[in-house]
Amino acid sequence: MVYDTIGASPVAWAGKPYPAVRSVAERDGSVAVVPVGSLEQHGHHLPTATDTILADAVATTAAERVADGMPILVTPPLWTGHSPHHTPFGGTVTLDGGRLLALLEDTAGSVLGEGFDGLLLLNGHGGNGALVSSATSTIGSTHRDAEILGVTYFDLGAERIGEIRESDRGGAGHAGEIETSMIAHLRPELVDMDAAEGRPWESPYDRTRDDLSHPGPLAAYADFDAFSDTGAVGNPELATAEKGERFFEVFVDEVGDVLERLHEQAG
Amino acid sequence: MVYDTIGASPVAWAGKPYPAVRSVAERDGSVAVVPVGSLEQHGHHLPTATDTILADAVATTAAERVADGMPILVTPPLWTGHSPHHTPFGGTVTLDGGRLLALLEDTAGSVLGEGFDGLLLLNGHGGNGALVSSATSTIGSTHRDAEILGVTYFDLGAERIGEIRESDRGGAGHAGEIETSMIAHLRPELVDMDAAEGRPWESPYDRTRDDLSHPGPLAAYADFDAFSDTGAVGNPELATAEKGERFFEVFVDEVGDVLERLHEQAG
Amino acid sequence: MVYDTIGASPVAWAGKPYPAVRSVAERDGSVAVVPVGSLEQHGHHLPTATDTILADAVATTAAERVADGMPILVTPPLWTGHSPHHTPFGGTVTLDGGRLLALLEDTAGSVLGEGFDGLLLLNGHGGNGALVSSATSTIGSTHRDAEILGVTYFDLGAERIGEIRESDRGGAGHAGEIETSMIAHLRPELVDMDAAEGRPWESPYDRTRDDLSHPGPLAAYADFDAFSDTGAVGNPELATAEKGERFFEVFVDEVGDVLERLHEQAG
Amino acid sequence: MVYDTIGASPVAWAGKPYPAVRSVAERDGSVAVVPVGSLEQHGHHLPTATDTILADAVATTAAERVADGMPILVTPPLWTGHSPHHTPFGGTVTLDGGRLLALLEDTAGSVLGEGFDGLLLLNGHGGNGALVSSATSTIGSTHRDAEILGVTYFDLGAERIGEIRESDRGGAGHAGEIETSMIAHLRPELVDMDAAEGRPWESPYDRTRDDLSHPGPLAAYADFDAFSDTGAVGNPELATAEKGERFFEVFVDEVGDVLERLHEQAG
Amino acid sequence: MVYDTIGASPVAWAGKPYPAVRSVAERDGSVAVVPVGSLEQHGHHLPTATDTILADAVATTAAERVADGMPILVTPPLWTGHSPHHTPFGGTVTLDGGRLLALLEDTAGSVLGEGFDGLLLLNGHGGNGALVSSATSTIGSTHRDAEILGVTYFDLGAERIGEIRESDRGGAGHAGEIETSMIAHLRPELVDMDAAEGRPWESPYDRTRDDLSHPGPLAAYADFDAFSDTGAVGNPELATAEKGERFFEVFVDEVGDVLERLHEQAG
Amino acid sequence: MVYDTIGASPVAWAGKPYPAVRSVAERDGSVAVVPVGSLEQHGHHLPTATDTILADAVATTAAERVADGMPILVTPPLWTGHSPHHTPFGGTVTLDGGRLLALLEDTAGSVLGEGFDGLLLLNGHGGNGALVSSATSTIGSTHRDAEILGVTYFDLGAERIGEIRESDRGGAGHAGEIETSMIAHLRPELVDMDAAEGRPWESPYDRTRDDLSHPGPLAAYADFDAFSDTGAVGNPELATAEKGERFFEVFVDEVGDVLERLHEQAG
Repeated sequence: MVYDTIGASPVAWAGKPYPAVRSVAERDGSVAVVPVGSLEQHGHHLPTATDTILADAVATTAAERVADGMPILVTPPLWTGHSPHHTPFGGTVTLDGGRLLALLEDTAGSVLGEGFDGLLLLNGHGGNGALVSSATSTIGSTHRDAEILGVTYFDLGAERIGEIRESDRGGAGHAGEIETSMIAHLRPELVDMDAAEGRPWESPYDRTRDDLSHPGPLAAYADFDAFSDTGAVGNPELATAEKGERFFEVFVDEVGDVLERLHEQAG
Repeated sequence: MVYDTIGASPVAWAGKPYPAVRSVAERDGSVAVVPVGSLEQHGHHLPTATDTILADAVATTAAERVADGMPILVTPPLWTGHSPHHTPFGGTVTLDGGRLLALLEDTAGSVLGEGFDGLLLLNGHGGNGALVSSATSTIGSTHRDAEILGVTYFDLGAERIGEIRESDRGGAGHAGEIETSMIAHLRPELVDMDAAEGRPWESPYDRTRDDLSHPGPLAAYADFDAFSDTGAVGNPELATAEKGERFFEVFVDEVGDVLERLHEQAG
Repeated sequence: MVYDTIGASPVAWAGKPYPAVRSVAERDGSVAVVPVGSLEQHGHHLPTATDTILADAVATTAAERVADGMPILVTPPLWTGHSPHHTPFGGTVTLDGGRLLALLEDTAGSVLGEGFDGLLLLNGHGGNGALVSSATSTIGSTHRDAEILGVTYFDLGAERIGEIRESDRGGAGHAGEIETSMIAHLRPELVDMDAAEGRPWESPYDRTRDDLSHPGPLAAYADFDAFSDTGAVGNPELATAEKGERFFEVFVDEVGDVLERLHEQAG
Repeated sequence: MVYDTIGASPVAWAGKPYPAVRSVAERDGSVAVVPVGSLEQHGHHLPTATDTILADAVATTAAERVADGMPILVTPPLWTGHSPHHTPFGGTVTLDGGRLLALLEDTAGSVLGEGFDGLLLLNGHGGNGALVSSATSTIGSTHRDAEILGVTYFDLGAERIGEIRESDRGGAGHAGEIETSMIAHLRPELVDMDAAEGRPWESPYDRTRDDLSHPGPLAAYADFDAFSDTGAVGNPELATAEKGERFFEVFVDEVGDVLERLHEQAG
Repeated sequence: MVYDTIGASPVAWAGKPYPAVRSVAERDGSVAVVPVGSLEQHGHHLPTATDTILADAVATTAAERVADGMPILVTPPLWTGHSPHHTPFGGTVTLDGGRLLALLEDTAGSVLGEGFDGLLLLNGHGGNGALVSSATSTIGSTHRDAEILGVTYFDLGAERIGEIRESDRGGAGHAGEIETSMIAHLRPELVDMDAAEGRPWESPYDRTRDDLSHPGPLAAYADFDAFSDTGAVGNPELATAEKGERFFEVFVDEVGDVLERLHEQAG
Repeated sequence: MVYDTIGASPVAWAGKPYPAVRSVAERDGSVAVVPVGSLEQHGHHLPTATDTILADAVATTAAERVADGMPILVTPPLWTGHSPHHTPFGGTVTLDGGRLLALLEDTAGSVLGEGFDGLLLLNGHGGNGALVSSATSTIGSTHRDAEILGVTYFDLGAERIGEIRESDRGGAGHAGEIETSMIAHLRPELVDMDAAEGRPWESPYDRTRDDLSHPGPLAAYADFDAFSDTGAVGNPELATAEKGERFFEVFVDEVGDVLERLHEQAG
């Protein structure tokens, strides 16, 4: 038995022969999306590829929804993220910052070389966020005739997410209510709700991110075992597939909106 | 609709929570496999992710077959290969040689840091072959207590493949009889047999590789449009899903054998 | 009083002989601050070193205020920032992203090698923000026994700033009301208020930063001449030295608070 | 008068708005000067920024003196030098050789991109000397239409310096008579003459530099604590502000002469 | 006659003044050869420069033989190879993989910049083989108007070599029958036949190279002391100068044939 | 007698089997010498490898002379120097500065890893001088238990050389009286005295090197065709083999003296 659906979506670059890729790239205002994830611990209850699965799913679904109105393709997800803070637990593959920056720049350079007019780096891992932003700047300044965006999907739609979630601020931490719910919705066979144990997000600094939906201005390095002995932070036990679907729809909708504006600008 | 089975196999690192990854890594003689593919033109009839799909499928299936007898996991496939010679066609994402070498080294370093005793880089793209071999040497010399192997799957089992194929030497070129047959077996929805048009592999040098099953000692750079206006070389029109299954079984068997020896050595 | 002559402040590393530096570094909970600025166009009315002057002044003044309670030193400011988006105007010196990341990592590594227990990278330029955050992660993960923070000063204290400013959202853009006011307070001889002409910050994307005090989740590359023909964005004409002093005090206060917590954690 | 507040001098790039920088750059034979210093131990009596202060002061004052006759600007000083040999003492921030070389090349590339016709890298630290020369070659060969010079200021005017100094050869070592006198002249508040204790410069090799004014052909690596337990070498106790002024005038005069020839050649 | 004094051969770039180099480079179909060797242990009986001597001799002699019919020059040999697996013995200088790749690329770029139409990287060390192939790809894809080849000389002419050798498969290992015979032919004063002691090549993997004339598809890292306590593998004791001449002639002939085809293609 | 066949000298690392290299390295105060040359134009009358031949000959002969009193070996010469200023003529292979610096560091690191106590980088090309000095510092600071020196041989013995030469200052320029005489002595078959035409060394700067024996403090980049249409500078026509022998003896003697002191220090 082979488990593998690389390239199954109608917007997947991977599944198309090259003439089909080229014909999309050559259309006016064409857009490529590169999902960026990680392979890292997500508690005892979520798979290590959680960020990659979610970035890929949000990117692909959002692209499918807007594909009627614009030429768009999604590459396979980059799963080698920057996760040094998770290495104390195990299960983690990580690149150092400079290497990930270079990988993003090189991948983007090659994608743009195909003729796409716009590019979105869609990130699903907090630890990659600053590097994706940095890459956006470098890519943009070396490809000035293309339109370049970068975003971490869960930084979008905070207000709408707030209306769905049940946990208080902090409950939607790493492998917490939001991520667990969405994996329960999208890949229920990969969640072990019995093993879902989060810990409260207690930081000595009150200006850092303290929830997936609440970023903060202060970057503070900490190995993740300082926050949680299980690797999960927040309230994964509140997760449900039903909420997962609603969270997912918000993010897909927000990213879809970004894609539409990107298409307009890139045209 | 979301198309995505990252982590679906029982040997997939991606689908497991970290305690499960760690428990495999810690067993004696544990083995990790990193599939290495590409995203590049494969003629008018095969998807751009052909090499990634095949490397992933061979690696995963081989690992599943031997998993009873050894602790083993497979990471997601690296799909950013080295394919400058395919860029004249389109549909191609490529890293330069030094960057891919570094990506392989960094990924391997992180995998081995988890405690695996053995590592196999399983490559599915000819253009990556030398870099995977080079990486094997660098990784091996900087992780001397682990056992490191690298191989391009279609360099294995040449004799058994020869008994199955119908084309003459040269017919199993890039996107030719072998690759097309295997995609027809594994992912039939991604093949367009009506568009399968190969061209004969005519090289000015008689010492270069001239068939997937016939490597040669001479490395000669050539943009691929020098060989074929369709991007395919050899006889894809001879491909069948039935032969694809047989080719696939040979490669899975050969890689399984390599994995068993790797496990013994790593123990 | 603001000290920006090299080594003039009582907390300046630069002005002390080495035994004095070492004796600070060796005390429990010792903290080093590295200001990070830029040399780039700031409209017709502000000096190119605006970001460097402000990062240096905020860092140094904040450190002086807390120096009674903790061992602390401030290095000279790094003035080679990442500003490719400002090069269309002139007056700009810029490093690419990977180089600035490496410079921050190397500088921090050397500073920490002196024995400091905590480090704050205090940034004063928006274009450096993501790189400073990225550097915080790399530095933190390679110096796990030290406490590492990174922040862009104007991302702090948004509410208090809002009570002082007169412009609407967007008025405190690049070289706008806030920066102009603070330079008018700290270095009045370097401001030419007659030449202060900002342009409204009009972005096609509603999720990007649109004011010094309003960051957004979306990174979008754009050469700055797309926003303003003068190089300034917002309402610099509303700037006054009196407001500049009040803005400055807010930022100094916020950074001082971060330093105190850093000292506690590093102890 | 020496200006070392950021941007205070009339020739300081840092203190000017971009239109003023550009208008200098665009004039015929325009020249930019980049001072290169260090942050490193200079005995018990001199500040760690000694080399940066002196390179900046010599560059700025020389440029001011010739500014009537040529378009010229001085950037802020680079203070992250190459000082591994001083790390045993403390107080030192150092970049490795390749990194400093790259920083010099990148900074110069950006400066020249503004349109300057000539560039002088003016170095104030012995440990940077070879790297500044190396950078001159790389920069020159990649910007063949500009005129590129590099020099360590104290390698100029040896004969005239010899007429002023009181110490014998060796007395003007690191933090010795010359550097101490000039800091006493320029920044008297930063010198502690009571703590000025040099040690004789005794090298096992008679072909190495053995005085600021006596370079030698042989490069020999030695940690500086092999020469001096105080970190200072030579006769700092002979230093006076009066001699400092005379030393400084010689160097300013020599550098001014270099700048005038550079302007002629760059025109 | 073999010329291995620097510049002594009539086809040696090194021995010619630049006008003579340029005049060769400018002719139609001009070819440059860069020999690539190593400095590494070759048992108790062969010199550490064995691979460099042999690559240089094969390249130079082959080029001399074809020089009547084509414009051709040979650079001095690069002797800094990739040999981490030999370091346990001593006598070895090695570059890591990325550095050697870069050195090959840079050297080739400079050679091609002189105007040569074709380039052959002629390798004499197994540990360099994959890197030379990788470099061929990178060089080729960045110099698309030149013809680029790479080969390890002993991968050529396997059948003809088989008719000469006396040892069984495995007997022509590292410092075995073939290399020893050729050094005995070319530089007899550097061989100590009394010290020639090989060990059988016993690999746990049956798909790796197990003889100079029998490459395999599997790359497996192993420190060489796992194979042999003397550093030599196979049957060096069977070596004779007479066979060495015959081996050498086969390789020279094969490489000469490659050069002729390269010239035709490059024209 | 000068040995420049690979491995021919009794002090040549290249010609020895590894046990002999190791036994030298392990003796107390052992010294390794790495000659560093170039492959670049040297006028119409000297071979492109002039600097490599001379650095190798000086290093090897000096080492042979002192080998009775100390354990010493010489590696083959590195011939890929830094010569961008000579590329306008042809015949030149050049590495950029950072690459050569890295090659020197890596080579030295590997040499020192064999157990040598001291290292001399002996340079024969002006364009490499600063990079060799830079490398000395980096190597020294990362191998603090070894003794590291770097020198350009013609910077030694200026006074004694002055007594031999007939040309005035400037006559011993690039490919001038000194280099031509020494090649005429060591490799007479490679000199074409009829083609020896130098041009006067006229620099707009009076502080740069203006003769092989007269270095200057100022680094000024200039393509070499600004100095000479033949590529040679000075008075090669005054060269004789007899003077060449005398020049050579001075340099060998000076380097021998450096080696003896190095051995004492390294012991």
